[in-house]
Amino acid sequence: MSFSQQYPSTLLQHAVNEMSRLPGIGRKSALRLVLHMLRMDPNQVDSLAGSLSQLVHEVRYCRVCHNISDVETCAICADSHRDAGMVCVVENVQDVMAIEQTQQYRGLYHVLGGVISPMDGIGPSNLEIQSLIERVQAGGVKEVILALSPTMEGDTTNFYIYRKLQDTGVAVTVIARGVAQNDELQYTDEVTLGRALLGRTPYST
Amino acid sequence: MSFSQQYPSTLLQHAVNEMSRLPGIGRKSALRLVLHMLRMDPNQVDSLAGSLSQLVHEVRYCRVCHNISDVETCAICADSHRDAGMVCVVENVQDVMAIEQTQQYRGLYHVLGGVISPMDGIGPSNLEIQSLIERVQAGGVKEVILALSPTMEGDTTNFYIYRKLQDTGVAVTVIARGVAQNDELQYTDEVTLGRALLGRTPYST
Repeated sequence: MSFSQQYPSTLLQHAVNEMSRLPGIGRKSALRLVLHMLRMDPNQVDSLAGSLSQLVHEVRYCRVCHNISDVETCAICADSHRDAGMVCVVENVQDVMAIEQTQQYRGLYHVLGGVISPMDGIGPSNLEIQSLIERVQAGGVKEVILALSPTMEGDTTNFYIYRKLQDTGVAVTVIARGVAQNDELQYTDEVTLGRALLGRTPYST
Repeated sequence: MSFSQQYPSTLLQHAVNEMSRLPGIGRKSALRLVLHMLRMDPNQVDSLAGSLSQLVHEVRYCRVCHNISDVETCAICADSHRDAGMVCVVENVQDVMAIEQTQQYRGLYHVLGGVISPMDGIGPSNLEIQSLIERVQAGGVKEVILALSPTMEGDTTNFYIYRKLQDTGVAVTVIARGVAQNDELQYTDEVTLGRALLGRTPYST
């Protein structure tokens, strides 16, 4: 058995190769996962495999907010109890789910699909920015809330969107930046702490 | 949108549910992996899914050593340059791969498929122990090397196999236990250090 031919089976090797393409899964983890599947009911593995194939082939995106959806207009956009005058701009699905979890927001969303990142070759045309502008220009939106990550890429994207929207008359706001709940002040970085001081608000109970 | 209905798509939710059944993959990791797949070429995802299904349906085990194999007798067992008089008993495929990596062993293997663990409901009959005994009784094996993990379950399994083989006349050995390469002595646990002292060997260069 040569040194390079380390897997005892090409089927096993193929499955490990495929699994280890996924982010955060190295070859050892992939092998562990694949060997676990061999101890599972084969029908369960088929169900897992089928669900992945089905997702990538049948996934749809909401025509309004571009979030992942099973139908043409997602449940949030179709909900008449939500405030259609507010649009919260987020990077991805996880951000929508995180904001929904807070139960503090009753408006709609706009999922960009990323942020502007020249290093990764992602420009405004790769994101759902034009569709956001058209959505605002179509009328009915009073406020656009920018809720991107407070990174350089997020800030760049915020600025780009702000410039594109500034002539439309819509209010553009950005989520508050400051010290996070339960963070210890002494370990908070200076940019965050500086912003938290500048952005101070009247004390209320 | 109710609190429980947190995924924006049932296809997405189904894929996340299936992925998060795998060991060490929580719901957040599963979501991250599944969303990554949505950015992959769908053919690559089909290839991943297909390789998993194919593996669990078409996997074979070597009829001699019970390691995963594409053919009836695996490449190691079929290799006439290897010493068929030595059989190294290991728990699983990964252990075979780890020993092969050392390039220090030219004998054959016997893959038990686990260790005796009453807590997990795994007894001798759930493992390839009877086939090991029959393999030794069939003749040709001179030494059985026990290379199980140095845990209570591994020790129990070693003892069980030793008792079963003691009347066959085959030599039963166990891999050396001692301090690991590059371990700092002061941080080595007392059982390991005690065994390393008891198992000392004449100094040689």
